[in-house]
Amino acid sequence: MTFTDFEIAYLAEQRLGRLATVRPDGTLQNSPVGFRYNPAIETIDIVGFNLATSRKFRNVAATGEVAFVVDDLYSTDPWRVRCLEIRGRAEAIEQPSDSAWGKPDPIIRIRARRIISFGIDDPNRPPHELVPHNRTVAARS
Amino acid sequence: MTFTDFEIAYLAEQRLGRLATVRPDGTLQNSPVGFRYNPAIETIDIVGFNLATSRKFRNVAATGEVAFVVDDLYSTDPWRVRCLEIRGRAEAIEQPSDSAWGKPDPIIRIRARRIISFGIDDPNRPPHELVPHNRTVAARS
Repeated sequence: MTFTDFEIAYLAEQRLGRLATVRPDGTLQNSPVGFRYNPAIETIDIVGFNLATSRKFRNVAATGEVAFVVDDLYSTDPWRVRCLEIRGRAEAIEQPSDSAWGKPDPIIRIRARRIISFGIDDPNRPPHELVPHNRTVAARS
Repeated sequence: MTFTDFEIAYLAEQRLGRLATVRPDGTLQNSPVGFRYNPAIETIDIVGFNLATSRKFRNVAATGEVAFVVDDLYSTDPWRVRCLEIRGRAEAIEQPSDSAWGKPDPIIRIRARRIISFGIDDPNRPPHELVPHNRTVAARS
């Protein structure tokens, strides 16, 4: 299992993620995106308005390097941020046959290499006792 | 003016931003962070728990390249995402004398090179009529 059950439930309840990509010149982009977890192949499948013509789609096609984060401010007193960050490689797929969205619309598909999970598996632990659950889930290709 | 009045008001009302940084090996990170706009010098000043020992702080010190995004799902019907993305260069400052937080705690300070603003200056325009307000505010150094 790439993701824990808590993490999969968290992905299902959040509406926006943010996708960092790198342009061929080395500068970065960071974009809010819609996403779904794809349980069949344990990927994150990202969609967007006119995705295939977007700069982030082309960045992924050119460099493949991404970091994707889903987070929320669960409480302000105490201050408690929950966060699931997925670093890895992504593909820009124009006509997917197996999209988590059930349609052949273009997607960016992320395969996790490293996962940083904070506060998601420990809903009842006080914030100051939380530690990140960092783990490598695939070798760097 | 680097930012419009609408953008400054938007930055003031949002609680979390997401900071993309690049590690020396070219892989990316994307982290939820607290931030404040610094009106005196038109920067974004980012704070965090144990910031100075974090990997993102060291990434900024090493490479300086960042993309920072603040967004929210303003409505779901119609689907309306508001977004302010700031791409540029950042500094890792251990003891700032002029932090937007009024304290000498470590910050990551972003100077915008390019701003992508979507839906923030146009609160009453229908989503399908919105266009991004993209602009370059500083030359690439």
